[in-house]
Amino acid sequence: MSNFPRLRLRSPGRAAPYNGVTVPTLQVDVGHSSYPIRIGAGLLGDSALFAASLAPAGLLIVTNTVVAPLYLTRLHAALGRDAPLCVLPDGERHKTLNTLETVLDALVEARLSRDGTVIALGGGVIGDIAGFAAAVYQRGIAYVQVPTTLLAQVDSSVGGKTGVNHPGGKNLIGAFHQPRAVIADTDTLSTLPDRELSAGLAEVIKYGCIWDPALFEWLESNIARLRSRDPEALEAAIARCCAIKAEIVGRDERESSLRAILNFGHTFGHAIEAATHFEQWLHGEAVGLGMIMAADLSARLGRIARPDAARIRALVAAAGLPVDPPRIGAGRAADLMRMDKKVLGGRVRLVLLERLGRATVTGDYAEDAYTATLEEHFA
Amino acid sequence: MSNFPRLRLRSPGRAAPYNGVTVPTLQVDVGHSSYPIRIGAGLLGDSALFAASLAPAGLLIVTNTVVAPLYLTRLHAALGRDAPLCVLPDGERHKTLNTLETVLDALVEARLSRDGTVIALGGGVIGDIAGFAAAVYQRGIAYVQVPTTLLAQVDSSVGGKTGVNHPGGKNLIGAFHQPRAVIADTDTLSTLPDRELSAGLAEVIKYGCIWDPALFEWLESNIARLRSRDPEALEAAIARCCAIKAEIVGRDERESSLRAILNFGHTFGHAIEAATHFEQWLHGEAVGLGMIMAADLSARLGRIARPDAARIRALVAAAGLPVDPPRIGAGRAADLMRMDKKVLGGRVRLVLLERLGRATVTGDYAEDAYTATLEEHFA
Repeated sequence: MSNFPRLRLRSPGRAAPYNGVTVPTLQVDVGHSSYPIRIGAGLLGDSALFAASLAPAGLLIVTNTVVAPLYLTRLHAALGRDAPLCVLPDGERHKTLNTLETVLDALVEARLSRDGTVIALGGGVIGDIAGFAAAVYQRGIAYVQVPTTLLAQVDSSVGGKTGVNHPGGKNLIGAFHQPRAVIADTDTLSTLPDRELSAGLAEVIKYGCIWDPALFEWLESNIARLRSRDPEALEAAIARCCAIKAEIVGRDERESSLRAILNFGHTFGHAIEAATHFEQWLHGEAVGLGMIMAADLSARLGRIARPDAARIRALVAAAGLPVDPPRIGAGRAADLMRMDKKVLGGRVRLVLLERLGRATVTGDYAEDAYTATLEEHFA
Repeated sequence: MSNFPRLRLRSPGRAAPYNGVTVPTLQVDVGHSSYPIRIGAGLLGDSALFAASLAPAGLLIVTNTVVAPLYLTRLHAALGRDAPLCVLPDGERHKTLNTLETVLDALVEARLSRDGTVIALGGGVIGDIAGFAAAVYQRGIAYVQVPTTLLAQVDSSVGGKTGVNHPGGKNLIGAFHQPRAVIADTDTLSTLPDRELSAGLAEVIKYGCIWDPALFEWLESNIARLRSRDPEALEAAIARCCAIKAEIVGRDERESSLRAILNFGHTFGHAIEAATHFEQWLHGEAVGLGMIMAADLSARLGRIARPDAARIRALVAAAGLPVDPPRIGAGRAADLMRMDKKVLGGRVRLVLLERLGRATVTGDYAEDAYTATLEEHFA
């Protein structure tokens, strides 16, 4: 398992006994707010954990049509009651202001007070919408993330970024609103389609690229175990990714600088998602492609060695992710990337690698290398 | 002028020379954010003031069809250019998620980056919607309040409460998002209809009731000067109200306790506005009626003397405000008040007076006195 387990000990996490079993527990601390991330098998059935995680008054469960039949009964059992429910259609294309309004209507219908809690049961889309609804309902109430996809467990459920898409760009509308707790039951990954598992692995690879070369190497050796859903390997990967994210978010909640490195691969990826109306590619798939492109550009600029860019592409492929972007055209891609939120003063800012495991955010790069990258992959 | 001017010296404000004239300048300090309130005649033409108040990148002006023809030219001149514009229909009934979406579309259309600024030019509705749009566009960009009504200048433009109404209740959807500056040009009050001037005076009276008995007494002597738009009296009243609001918001930005006293009269008032679909009564008129009811209940509970409740009613009347609520029925009113945001655990929390100039927020009051108040005024 290489030296990955040793690295986990350096993380802000600590092992804490919980209900007789040892559950990795991490803590996110953003100054004005501090909350636990619980990771482990069977947590969805843990009544005490949920009881400890809810605000005093009522609650609303937000989930979707795919997740509800799989896990709602288990959640209701843990809560000891049937709670008011808002079941949304599945898919990124429903991450809109319209769907937000559906959740807000449900909150009003349930007459949730300021001391109520929203439970987001599902993947990244559910977490983003439900979290945003909690952020703006009565100017902010509590919510708990119960991520059921690998992508949500390693990335989107942690750190308080919430929001919806706008026809003009992804996540253009949203809020920073930290959850009260993140409860990641790794058992839920058993029902995850292979394609979505791979999409989640894209974000896991991202953490290796931008922060942790040992994690990257460990992934190169263990990607098959992860794809075959080895519980130990999955839990180790999730815990490590959450520890890295907690550290980055703790240093820069509002993305004034450091946090932006978490967008590695995302700006190129956004162009792909926007060009295909958020329908054809999963977010993780687009990020996988985007990381290949960002690594390619980093190599063109002489920031990283060409073989390192090749290793990233190989690991993305080994994760079962596509490696050939749609041919949307370099000009179109450039336009879409300009609409990304990271544009500052007209210049597209990109996350580039300094070396494997070290990233930087910059608008200072040779235009011809950028254009060449777009033409190589999009033309 | 009684002892009101002496009291101003105790405020957090200070007189600062600006462009050769002395403009009262107050500072709002909520810890993570600190910003100035400028109050004075002609500020809308002050290029230097605007230049100092904007974030580095582009901007969008949000205003409405009534204010645009009156003040847009002056603002454009101060900015030295025509800026992208979003002109909304006038009125509280347009303070909806739909209208919010219109502003968000305009922000995307203008391609505003994270370093852009929204300028809210108008009354409370414009400030609330534009501020909320700034709060959620790209998870939060800067905005500047340029209030053009008395109500907005003394109350809604200060303190960072933004939001829209929901069919289920007023301001149910929103965010805390502090402006970068508040620029209150008292000249704009010259075009304000009498009815709206009186509506603004309701909030001025509120500050006297909950915080400042000297202000209340001063208002009893000077209400005619204010209604005849005596510039000195208006500026003194606005500065005093902003100083009180800055102090309260500085102590409790998120309304965990103290700030809720600013809702004096608002819970009763909300019932009136909701019952009449936010169309028949101006917000300030509803607040005026609500204060009469809250004072009546405070007297029924023996918290304040009956003559003090009578003084409040008399001052509301003297401000040109209605004193007879619509007969919507006590039961209906009770239902609508339960949907107000201040409901905690099913109990309607109310702002009641301990004496003239001192308020408290409580859910602990005799139910029969509450019911009697509703029946007296609504049945």
